[in-house]
Amino acid sequence: MKTLEFKNNKLFLLNQKKLPLTKEYIECKNYIEVGNAITDMYVRGAPAIGVTAAYGIVLGANSINTRKSEDFFKELDKVCDFLKKTRPTAVNLFDSIDRLYKIADSNKAHPISDIKNKLLYEAQLIEKEDISSNHQIGNFGNNLINKNQKILTHCNAGSLATCGFGTALGIIRAAHNSGKNIHVYADETRPYLQGARLTTLELKEDGIPVTLICDNMAGYFMKEGLIDCVIVGADRIALNGDTANKIGTYSLSVLAKEHNIPFFVAAPTTTIDLSLINGSQIPIEERNPTEISHFNDIQICPDGINIRNPSFDITPNTNITAIITNKGIIHNPTKENMLKLIQD
Amino acid sequence: MKTLEFKNNKLFLLNQKKLPLTKEYIECKNYIEVGNAITDMYVRGAPAIGVTAAYGIVLGANSINTRKSEDFFKELDKVCDFLKKTRPTAVNLFDSIDRLYKIADSNKAHPISDIKNKLLYEAQLIEKEDISSNHQIGNFGNNLINKNQKILTHCNAGSLATCGFGTALGIIRAAHNSGKNIHVYADETRPYLQGARLTTLELKEDGIPVTLICDNMAGYFMKEGLIDCVIVGADRIALNGDTANKIGTYSLSVLAKEHNIPFFVAAPTTTIDLSLINGSQIPIEERNPTEISHFNDIQICPDGINIRNPSFDITPNTNITAIITNKGIIHNPTKENMLKLIQD
Repeated sequence: MKTLEFKNNKLFLLNQKKLPLTKEYIECKNYIEVGNAITDMYVRGAPAIGVTAAYGIVLGANSINTRKSEDFFKELDKVCDFLKKTRPTAVNLFDSIDRLYKIADSNKAHPISDIKNKLLYEAQLIEKEDISSNHQIGNFGNNLINKNQKILTHCNAGSLATCGFGTALGIIRAAHNSGKNIHVYADETRPYLQGARLTTLELKEDGIPVTLICDNMAGYFMKEGLIDCVIVGADRIALNGDTANKIGTYSLSVLAKEHNIPFFVAAPTTTIDLSLINGSQIPIEERNPTEISHFNDIQICPDGINIRNPSFDITPNTNITAIITNKGIIHNPTKENMLKLIQD
Repeated sequence: MKTLEFKNNKLFLLNQKKLPLTKEYIECKNYIEVGNAITDMYVRGAPAIGVTAAYGIVLGANSINTRKSEDFFKELDKVCDFLKKTRPTAVNLFDSIDRLYKIADSNKAHPISDIKNKLLYEAQLIEKEDISSNHQIGNFGNNLINKNQKILTHCNAGSLATCGFGTALGIIRAAHNSGKNIHVYADETRPYLQGARLTTLELKEDGIPVTLICDNMAGYFMKEGLIDCVIVGADRIALNGDTANKIGTYSLSVLAKEHNIPFFVAAPTTTIDLSLINGSQIPIEERNPTEISHFNDIQICPDGINIRNPSFDITPNTNITAIITNKGIIHNPTKENMLKLIQD
């Protein structure tokens, strides 16, 4: 199952809304369709969103028919602005867009066709970097996993959230592949059910033992001694290690602390936002209440009640045992420890 | 909306599986139908289960056609045994059954028709006691609620879980009715969605402001300073105050402690099981995995994965600020403090 594929100047996205029972791809022919697919969560997961947005810019750039550099960049600005407004929390989105814009900008003097080629090359490079970064995260993280451990994960930080092995699930795959006989507990992750629909599917297809539980059961299983560590992904990490991830992650970190269970965050260094000194500055997306009030289009609560649907929360660095990146492990994340790894 | 009504030798139960969009009653003509309605959660909530089981015994007793006392009691034993096996955690079920059996047993010398009348009287008494006990809990608990407070509740400990005002929601109703301008946050409570389906419905119908959130969002709202206290019901309370309640309650108690938020349990003294010295002895029901894997009969996860579905968890007394009963408030519940109130 590839999360996305760019071919013949079209972006094909695995429709994650219909998983696990239906596997189909949607076809994005232009940057508007790409942006809407991000907003509507046909594709999700910070690294996958970053790569998708990069191909969105490629499609946007390729559709600009002009030989005038000024006109090209005016249109390219529009494309970037549109794609930047699709989702607010995952930093990979903004990083990818800025990275491609800089490539275009630094090649301003070249013919527009050259710029378009360079944009495609850069998008493909981001995709390749994501794949290799997943492997590096997996290898580093595997050192923290012992034989026979039971690992709790939340949401989906797997191959469906990336272009490769996954971040949290990359570590789980590495541990499984090295014969450590691990068992995964997957939170279902309301309201979008990434755990129930996506994580269980990935692990089942790879033959990794998995047990599905509801989000509100995590504390029970920790107290029963059935969880040895927690591994989650990240959507944005501040300079001090504070981490934005799927709603519910913060609660898990508090529960892990209460039970003396190590709490690991797995993410590429591209998820670290060096411009933010702590997590309070990370914008939290509030999504449509119908994600909670309706289930497969069937209403589950009374009409006309208030619903809140924050999609992420912030886990403070003090609740995080280690952040596992493609460049190495940051134990006890603080600004100092983060900079040590990043600047190495 | 009455949770249940006994008339013309039939028990009518509000079908809580179909709420909030459809309001219909199911008719139980015999004790087997009553027992199945408990097991399949057409009726739920510890106090309501207790009253339902009592009427189940009435129906069972009334169907026994014999003049021989020995035969009557042999059949009555069967009825009690069947009803005791419907659900394991809520102590009110066993208490009601034992209470009615004792009434029959202590009237052994009387004609069977007299015993049947006494059983009906006792079942009606349990129902009436539940209603008045709800009011007492509400009045005591209201003393702990300040003006403008935002209260988090989990599952449904309302009129739909009892025959009256509710326990946790009884306090919320009392606070609202005394003009305290409270606002309720209701956890949706997977997998059965008692919060999304039942609690929001009750509060909406009473004009009490309510906001629905997913279970995994509670920590986020606590950290944001949007929760002033937590009030939940109980299915069984051990002698030291350890409390079994809907799965997810324990996690909430840990989160409340982390954020210095008072955590209140509301329950009638009939929910206290004096035979258990602590919560480790309370049996935890494990329900059918299809409650998690399917949603309105639509499958949401892949085939053939493991699922765990514990329906309750134990909150240790150390995480409970106070237990609010019909006889008064037990602050800092311990065996000593519990006995002080019970024996008063």
